[in-house]
Amino acid sequence: MQQSKTLKEIAEYLGGTVRGDGAVRVGGLAPLETAGPDTITFLANHKYAAKVAETKAGAVLMAPGNESYGRNVVEVANPYLGFAKLLTLFYTSPHPGLGILPESNVGTGVTMGEGISIYPGACVGNNVTIGARTVIHSGAVIYEGAVIGDDCVVHANVVIRERCRLGNRVIIQPGAVIGSDGFGYAPDGRGYYRIPQIGIVVLEDDVEVGANTTVDRAALEVTLVKQGTKLDNLVQVAHNCQIGRDCMIVSQVGISGSTKVGDHVTLAGQVGVAGHLTIGDNVMVGAKSGVPNSLAANAGYSGYPAQPHKEWLKSMAVVSNLPALKKTVGSLEKRIAELEEQLKK
Amino acid sequence: MQQSKTLKEIAEYLGGTVRGDGAVRVGGLAPLETAGPDTITFLANHKYAAKVAETKAGAVLMAPGNESYGRNVVEVANPYLGFAKLLTLFYTSPHPGLGILPESNVGTGVTMGEGISIYPGACVGNNVTIGARTVIHSGAVIYEGAVIGDDCVVHANVVIRERCRLGNRVIIQPGAVIGSDGFGYAPDGRGYYRIPQIGIVVLEDDVEVGANTTVDRAALEVTLVKQGTKLDNLVQVAHNCQIGRDCMIVSQVGISGSTKVGDHVTLAGQVGVAGHLTIGDNVMVGAKSGVPNSLAANAGYSGYPAQPHKEWLKSMAVVSNLPALKKTVGSLEKRIAELEEQLKK
Amino acid sequence: MQQSKTLKEIAEYLGGTVRGDGAVRVGGLAPLETAGPDTITFLANHKYAAKVAETKAGAVLMAPGNESYGRNVVEVANPYLGFAKLLTLFYTSPHPGLGILPESNVGTGVTMGEGISIYPGACVGNNVTIGARTVIHSGAVIYEGAVIGDDCVVHANVVIRERCRLGNRVIIQPGAVIGSDGFGYAPDGRGYYRIPQIGIVVLEDDVEVGANTTVDRAALEVTLVKQGTKLDNLVQVAHNCQIGRDCMIVSQVGISGSTKVGDHVTLAGQVGVAGHLTIGDNVMVGAKSGVPNSLAANAGYSGYPAQPHKEWLKSMAVVSNLPALKKTVGSLEKRIAELEEQLKK
Repeated sequence: MQQSKTLKEIAEYLGGTVRGDGAVRVGGLAPLETAGPDTITFLANHKYAAKVAETKAGAVLMAPGNESYGRNVVEVANPYLGFAKLLTLFYTSPHPGLGILPESNVGTGVTMGEGISIYPGACVGNNVTIGARTVIHSGAVIYEGAVIGDDCVVHANVVIRERCRLGNRVIIQPGAVIGSDGFGYAPDGRGYYRIPQIGIVVLEDDVEVGANTTVDRAALEVTLVKQGTKLDNLVQVAHNCQIGRDCMIVSQVGISGSTKVGDHVTLAGQVGVAGHLTIGDNVMVGAKSGVPNSLAANAGYSGYPAQPHKEWLKSMAVVSNLPALKKTVGSLEKRIAELEEQLKK
Repeated sequence: MQQSKTLKEIAEYLGGTVRGDGAVRVGGLAPLETAGPDTITFLANHKYAAKVAETKAGAVLMAPGNESYGRNVVEVANPYLGFAKLLTLFYTSPHPGLGILPESNVGTGVTMGEGISIYPGACVGNNVTIGARTVIHSGAVIYEGAVIGDDCVVHANVVIRERCRLGNRVIIQPGAVIGSDGFGYAPDGRGYYRIPQIGIVVLEDDVEVGANTTVDRAALEVTLVKQGTKLDNLVQVAHNCQIGRDCMIVSQVGISGSTKVGDHVTLAGQVGVAGHLTIGDNVMVGAKSGVPNSLAANAGYSGYPAQPHKEWLKSMAVVSNLPALKKTVGSLEKRIAELEEQLKK
Repeated sequence: MQQSKTLKEIAEYLGGTVRGDGAVRVGGLAPLETAGPDTITFLANHKYAAKVAETKAGAVLMAPGNESYGRNVVEVANPYLGFAKLLTLFYTSPHPGLGILPESNVGTGVTMGEGISIYPGACVGNNVTIGARTVIHSGAVIYEGAVIGDDCVVHANVVIRERCRLGNRVIIQPGAVIGSDGFGYAPDGRGYYRIPQIGIVVLEDDVEVGANTTVDRAALEVTLVKQGTKLDNLVQVAHNCQIGRDCMIVSQVGISGSTKVGDHVTLAGQVGVAGHLTIGDNVMVGAKSGVPNSLAANAGYSGYPAQPHKEWLKSMAVVSNLPALKKTVGSLEKRIAELEEQLKK
């Protein structure tokens, strides 16, 4: 934890305004219920506004227009973002550059920036480039010729295969695999002939990759994840995919080969997307959906096959009541038969 | 394999009763069809009761009330459990404490109990605590300040991140990741601002974690898996989740952030559970179901959105016959039109 | 990249025929749009046949009967297979046998064929067998007594547990786990008693396993993947399964315990298969399907519960229009009520 800050300092850091005593010092961040007088708390959800009256926190971070209940307040337009930034301020610190620690394995022709850390048990292949202040944790394996930018964190037991390229500030959680061979085989009449996967993976700046997620290298060219996109744990990105900027790809999503995902797309947990599709910008796909066709931009979709979210909600409401619908149809059938009988007479 | 045992010894070990010759010795366990005279076999499913007549096994483990066909029998109330215990008796042995093997990497300030084994290539960070008789296999990486209890097995290439805590008898299969950063980001108007995940993961006593499963650390406090719960392979447990005691979480299940799962819950394969929900005790959720809402205790659910299992079965039966239902509705429409026509005349 | 080849040499290598100048040399392979004069391109899909007129490639690989637009052509019956073979020819080379590199950990009693490579940080347990020309990458961990055939590639951070057996030409992508304990527990009245998993995994010749995929060892005998079968990334194969020859198991598929999958089966992405089932030869199961029952051979299935693919397509068409169907039924109900009213008079 870092040293304490005055509310004035915090307001300046966040681009906010103090209401109350700006000289009050806090040394950490805590939820409304558990905060003590030496911490600042935050009101990110209006539902909990009344709890501000009872919190024991030394100060409250909130949006303008909320009742302060006499508390010292730091006002910011986006308190959830402010909360995230204060966590960074109070609880994180730059990784000290430890250099190449003993019992790590670094090949020949490796280019390294200043302030790097390579932990014991990490393996860095020949002709790898590692940018300034980047941290390679124990057990991570970087194959020959890979390029890693500045300020990256490659966690334990990550694998980055040959020639793949990571931008700056890329964070890879433990166990993720970047650049495994794409799943490409040509039927040869008896079985399957392996298609060499000679392309690479490029992860642009600020991309983050979750634990045990896999991103396959392209067959010929590049599997690309653009700037700012976040992949959660256990996600599969197949070969030749292109994923746009600032997407959120939630856990256990699978994206099949050669699909292009636009910018600012959210794929919720366990979604599956077929291959060779185009998903437009700003699309949101609901959890567990299956996407067999391309999706137009700026809309939400759900279900399998994915349909516009609102239509899906209506369909689902009927599915849950299908037995009743079937019964209704059965009784209508009977009533019609009776009517028909009557009219025959 | 361990030395042979008499049926009398086996009956005592299992809390059962010998029918026949208690002095007969067996040295292993085998299925009814393949067992030989020096092994004991087991009847765990009544469906196979007749096979007891033909087995070549030296003895049969069965529940009271079954026909013995003249075999030497060890009777126990729960033969499936007895089978499991005999596997343990005949085929497992305590891991010999090998100590810190050469070419492992152990940091400073590490506390270690007696009889531990740390294999070559394992990396143990500074200030880690490892309990008695615990085994850390090759390539496992334990970050700074983690605490591991007694009699644990941490398999190869497992990662346990900083400050996470494991109870006693915890078994982690290869490649699992405990304490990766939760998937938390605050939109900042352009992209996503990373929320530091400063909490930890706690796995209580007797928890087991499958291969390549991921359990994310909490944002602020604890992601908790309570005593006796088993996670299968490739499961995702998101940040801030709490999973109760003695749950079975089957392969490829995903549980979203901050969800609370009760005790004795079974989530079958590929189930997805949304975030911030409460799943009651003794709930069973069928394979591939999606759970968007909290579920009341002591019931079974299936489908997406999950509904009570029996209702789901009825809905599914209709779904499979929807084209027929649609056809029926079409023909009713025609018949009504005809009736209407007739009545106009 | 290898040295350049004449079209005559290429035609011989592929078992094809030159149309045009067989003495022309090419040194690589590129798509129709981006190929230059020193490369050969390929026409694998008739849809792009017109692009042959405009390509700048030095030669074109195509099936007999296509318009050559005056290009130098190598004709082969299966140009997609030819493309794969030329990738192999131009862009791959046998791994040089590097021997046991420094900082790898090799136990006692290890048997190794000629031309092997064991990279720094790899851990090979006691009494392991490694065949000729096999490559064990950094961070891979081979437990005691495992057997690996000739010409295998075991990528970084793969784990192969004790006594498991791999045939020849088996390729395991990074992070995959072979032989983790099956998910087997016996309820003991309070919680779950762990069933020792004393069996193994056998992967036959030419099997390939994707990144972070998990194949559990059998409880007693063998989890078997037969010759030529390919598992994609993040696949789960549970204990005691048997998967036939030349199957394609796509990413994130889960196969539950003791299920038998026939030969030449395709399970598309995110399919789930329940336990103790039999899937016939040549079955194809569509993406995201759930398979709760055995499936007859030589057919395609989709949906959950999986039904014949064509029936599923019809059902899905109705599901998407269920609200309309419901509305129709509602209006029929009203019209019938009116008819009934009229007839009463």
